[in-house]
Amino acid sequence: MPVQMQTMADAIRVLSMDAVEQAASGHPGMPMGMADVATVLWTKFLKYDASRPDWADRDRFVLSAGHGSMLLYSLLHLTGFKAMTLDQIKAFRQLNSKTPGHPEVFHTPGVETTTGPLGQGLATAVGMAMAERHLAAKYGADLVDHRTWVMAGDGCLMEGVSHEAISLAGRLKLNKLTVMWDDNNVTIDGPVTLSESGDQIARFKAAGWAVKAIDGHDVGQIRRALAWATKQDRPSLIACKTKIGKGAATMEGHHKTHGAALGATEIAATRDKMGWGAEPFHVPEDVSKAWRSAGRKGAKLRKAWEARLAASPAKTDLTRALKGELPADAFARLDAHIAEAVASKPAAATRQHSGSALDALFGSIPEMVGGSADLTGSNNTFVKNTQILDEPDYSGRYVNYGVREFGMAAAMNGMALHGGVIPYGGAFMVFSDYSRPAIRLGALMGVRVIHVMTHDSIGVGEDGPTHQPVEHLAAMRAMPNLNVFRPADAVETAECWRLALEAAKTPSFMALSRQKVPAVRTEASAENLSAKGAYELRAADGAAKVTIFASGTEVSVALAARDLLQAEGIGTRVVSTPCWELFAAQPAAYRTKVLGKGTVRVAVEAAASFGWERFIGEDGAFVGMDGFGASAPADQLYKHFGVTAEAVAAAAKSKLG
Amino acid sequence: MPVQMQTMADAIRVLSMDAVEQAASGHPGMPMGMADVATVLWTKFLKYDASRPDWADRDRFVLSAGHGSMLLYSLLHLTGFKAMTLDQIKAFRQLNSKTPGHPEVFHTPGVETTTGPLGQGLATAVGMAMAERHLAAKYGADLVDHRTWVMAGDGCLMEGVSHEAISLAGRLKLNKLTVMWDDNNVTIDGPVTLSESGDQIARFKAAGWAVKAIDGHDVGQIRRALAWATKQDRPSLIACKTKIGKGAATMEGHHKTHGAALGATEIAATRDKMGWGAEPFHVPEDVSKAWRSAGRKGAKLRKAWEARLAASPAKTDLTRALKGELPADAFARLDAHIAEAVASKPAAATRQHSGSALDALFGSIPEMVGGSADLTGSNNTFVKNTQILDEPDYSGRYVNYGVREFGMAAAMNGMALHGGVIPYGGAFMVFSDYSRPAIRLGALMGVRVIHVMTHDSIGVGEDGPTHQPVEHLAAMRAMPNLNVFRPADAVETAECWRLALEAAKTPSFMALSRQKVPAVRTEASAENLSAKGAYELRAADGAAKVTIFASGTEVSVALAARDLLQAEGIGTRVVSTPCWELFAAQPAAYRTKVLGKGTVRVAVEAAASFGWERFIGEDGAFVGMDGFGASAPADQLYKHFGVTAEAVAAAAKSKLG
Repeated sequence: MPVQMQTMADAIRVLSMDAVEQAASGHPGMPMGMADVATVLWTKFLKYDASRPDWADRDRFVLSAGHGSMLLYSLLHLTGFKAMTLDQIKAFRQLNSKTPGHPEVFHTPGVETTTGPLGQGLATAVGMAMAERHLAAKYGADLVDHRTWVMAGDGCLMEGVSHEAISLAGRLKLNKLTVMWDDNNVTIDGPVTLSESGDQIARFKAAGWAVKAIDGHDVGQIRRALAWATKQDRPSLIACKTKIGKGAATMEGHHKTHGAALGATEIAATRDKMGWGAEPFHVPEDVSKAWRSAGRKGAKLRKAWEARLAASPAKTDLTRALKGELPADAFARLDAHIAEAVASKPAAATRQHSGSALDALFGSIPEMVGGSADLTGSNNTFVKNTQILDEPDYSGRYVNYGVREFGMAAAMNGMALHGGVIPYGGAFMVFSDYSRPAIRLGALMGVRVIHVMTHDSIGVGEDGPTHQPVEHLAAMRAMPNLNVFRPADAVETAECWRLALEAAKTPSFMALSRQKVPAVRTEASAENLSAKGAYELRAADGAAKVTIFASGTEVSVALAARDLLQAEGIGTRVVSTPCWELFAAQPAAYRTKVLGKGTVRVAVEAAASFGWERFIGEDGAFVGMDGFGASAPADQLYKHFGVTAEAVAAAAKSKLG
Repeated sequence: MPVQMQTMADAIRVLSMDAVEQAASGHPGMPMGMADVATVLWTKFLKYDASRPDWADRDRFVLSAGHGSMLLYSLLHLTGFKAMTLDQIKAFRQLNSKTPGHPEVFHTPGVETTTGPLGQGLATAVGMAMAERHLAAKYGADLVDHRTWVMAGDGCLMEGVSHEAISLAGRLKLNKLTVMWDDNNVTIDGPVTLSESGDQIARFKAAGWAVKAIDGHDVGQIRRALAWATKQDRPSLIACKTKIGKGAATMEGHHKTHGAALGATEIAATRDKMGWGAEPFHVPEDVSKAWRSAGRKGAKLRKAWEARLAASPAKTDLTRALKGELPADAFARLDAHIAEAVASKPAAATRQHSGSALDALFGSIPEMVGGSADLTGSNNTFVKNTQILDEPDYSGRYVNYGVREFGMAAAMNGMALHGGVIPYGGAFMVFSDYSRPAIRLGALMGVRVIHVMTHDSIGVGEDGPTHQPVEHLAAMRAMPNLNVFRPADAVETAECWRLALEAAKTPSFMALSRQKVPAVRTEASAENLSAKGAYELRAADGAAKVTIFASGTEVSVALAARDLLQAEGIGTRVVSTPCWELFAAQPAAYRTKVLGKGTVRVAVEAAASFGWERFIGEDGAFVGMDGFGASAPADQLYKHFGVTAEAVAAAAKSKLG
């Protein structure tokens, strides 16, 4: 007799409750509640090969409700993902295990994205589904044809980012995206009605999704619903009515199963009820076999795909893009652009220089896909004649993300995780606060996503303090594994774009100006000076008594201050600091030289001083902002807040005594 | 003949296009498009008295689409708000004017909240409507009975926070909240269909709102819809189909009217078409009179209300709460709690100490209203026996915000702006990234909102890096006008709560631990030592050779390190740094003394080092995190990442040489 689906699902339940019990920490409720849906999905619908977690044309499974990680770990173990041994299951939530509290991509094979921050799994999945449609349009369904399946809980759907994600997916008619909502009526604080009265089904429908509601414990209904989902011409939601902690002897349906071990007594009673053996972590041989057989099913499909790829003229290009390797001549046009800029010394806003750099890159790196959160003209993110990535032809390379900064950033993470795409997207820098949770998750995962953040200071001008970043540079510089670039002119902007594209495991944050700046890099350089993070842009005439540090638009302020000081015979050097993170990675000797500790040190940046002691020490002077901005023309604001060459020179002289 | 509504609306249009033209910067499209709706609202429905912008029982008008500021400024000018002179209109977007690019509360009388960051006006308005319902339940409809009216654009409704806001409002059945959606089919990048295909009306209905669609230029329809809204038993949405830039001679309906001056030719043609005089900023006397009469209408209601208040037994209490003054004995029980803690030296997590402090405050400060984003038990935000603020009885003092960190923070801003309520709300600290945009807006506005952020470091343990703040302390400390508190034990936690409540114009961020810490403040103190921001907690035995700085849970690590060093005869002082912002505000002499520049300086904090040079200089040692956390029991993580007393002592000794 074949093993029943119910029994296979119980294997997930038992492993999940045992692992949480052993760790004395974790979330058994969701894995137990969604075990039936997961079992049908992973045995009948999901396209994967457990022996090749990195098969490019696999379906993506995203556990947006990442606290239910034991559901995913159980599935990976049962279906035979090599890294997910029983010992790893037993080491749930322990140091260095493959089974951390929340799933972590690149740490555990079979995990497609790091989840835990609610709502973001869903929003990331939208990006994966976009990348799939895009690459399918580009390379054909023979090579790219897979689905993205998401499990989401009430928490995911309460988070605002879920709105941005489902609107965007609905607008783009991402028909290969399916969300299975764990509709269990429970949140941490108690019944979901404590804080929610919305109609999720009507909501998804309003966003253009196909919708269906089922009993999430009825295998037949689950099977029919998943089959139905694969036939829709738009994204689909399956509302799965479930009981949290399903199967638990006495606690089934109770919010206390959400986030704590069930306890030995309950577990024993649950085993009894299920007719399961007493030994923790034990899975009967026939159940185990049935699961492993499901895990092997995709091998045939995978091999057929490999054969198609091998025979395809697109093989080299697609393989390269999927590996994340840049074309050999990726930067040839950019180098020419830099040489041209050194010669012509263009004065413009750095956002415009960024647009010019993009002009030189976009044609050379076909996997770049741009976009903006409804600020295309302001962000200078659009390269002329680019087609829009839209339904029904997804081959375009520019996305109209709408006013959805967070959804955009999360979708970009998903595209980068999917592979074959290098996403960049524009927004006003002050609203990096909106996308910050996804910027962080991208930094934690280590994905190549480029956040084009324009209007980077009081230089915004009349739009006023709500639109003027002040603390954002510091707040972003504090984040691990994020390169924050603030280039000063055309040359630095192009250099920083190159560094962003070369950083395959680190997202980049480009802080770009609204207002015009003069060229400061007016001499040819054999090396990418921005790669050092900070470097001496101008040496002192005579002995250096003063060092001025600056980034971005204030580099020209620093140079003007240097002129004032040198005119009085005070030897002054200027250090440009386009990327603090890269500077911190330089050898100590280089850093010491650049910092110029023997000199009076002054920093100028139209931003909060927080963190600048790293360059100027405790005794240096800082010229910048000590509060929020104001609404007025930009040049007046610079004077009003005293971010001027005169102020820098005066600060230096005051320190010189 | 009475002046036609249409003509009154044209006055808004003309002032708006003239002001934007004069500034050569701004957004005429929205004010012109929504002028008809605004005119009907401000002449027939909105309860206000232009001579008393601070009348407590006025209706609140929130321009969520804050870029349409000239709509609001025109209304304030036309209805006779004293501060809004014609000169101010002419100084639109100029330094120090009352007419900044986006409306700023406390800067311009009549502006109820600062808007511009899209979606937040709506989310803030939800908090205002909650405060109104709460105070109405508490004080009766005689004293509190007003509506909240919101104008929102497509951008507001695309932002994720709009989902959190409308779900929460729907759940709470906030029937005195009405949103007028400027349904103009246009976003900055072009037609709204570029990025949106959702059905907003179905969406709001799914969230439990009453919905209605009208022609936003038909005065009769507008009037009937606004009247309809006042009769609903739930929040209401009026979808106002409008033309952006309505009235503009040739550009009406075009997205180019959104964010730039129309130009002299278009303006002249528009004046012609409207039959309006040529002189910029001119409003004909009869039109002006009609508007001023509307602005005076509410005076009678206001006087009647004042009389009712004067006669009410609640007068003293309500007046005090509305002024934002704390009760005279607000801290009596807290002082007793502190004295008790000094004596009993309780060891517990600082989130638990926070719960104990709340126990001592909640009864004494009746305007405190708490809540949590579905983490009540974890955040320790609930005071026993508190009723839930819910429909139909809004008198409760605890809100089940649901998994809506951003919506919660924005609603708290709205409650604080409304007045009569001091809101606090709990979340996991790592998800302060989600609420950050509202935390910033609260800091910019200067409102008393207390963000209770628990699980503040790798001390989170098994939940892993997605749930462990690393850079958040630095990112928050970088923000202007936000007090970031990280108390070390029961006494500091209580002190910090007092400081948060006393800071009437600064929001507070309480970083609290999940894990247990020993008491460190074991001696009675006459003053609130945390008020200094940083202070010497333990002097050195003998001459001080080392200073160790720490905050929160690492203060006990610092003390243990001191023991190790003193055991070797190395005089070591320990400085606790519960609030950097307050320390920065101390006199230089005090700061110098605390910093102990002559000594070897070491800081320990289970967080990123960013910003610590402020205490330890360039040559000090930092013991903490240099990347993201990991999933494992907390005590193991502290060892794994080397945040230990031994590491601190070793760092000090290495610096001593």
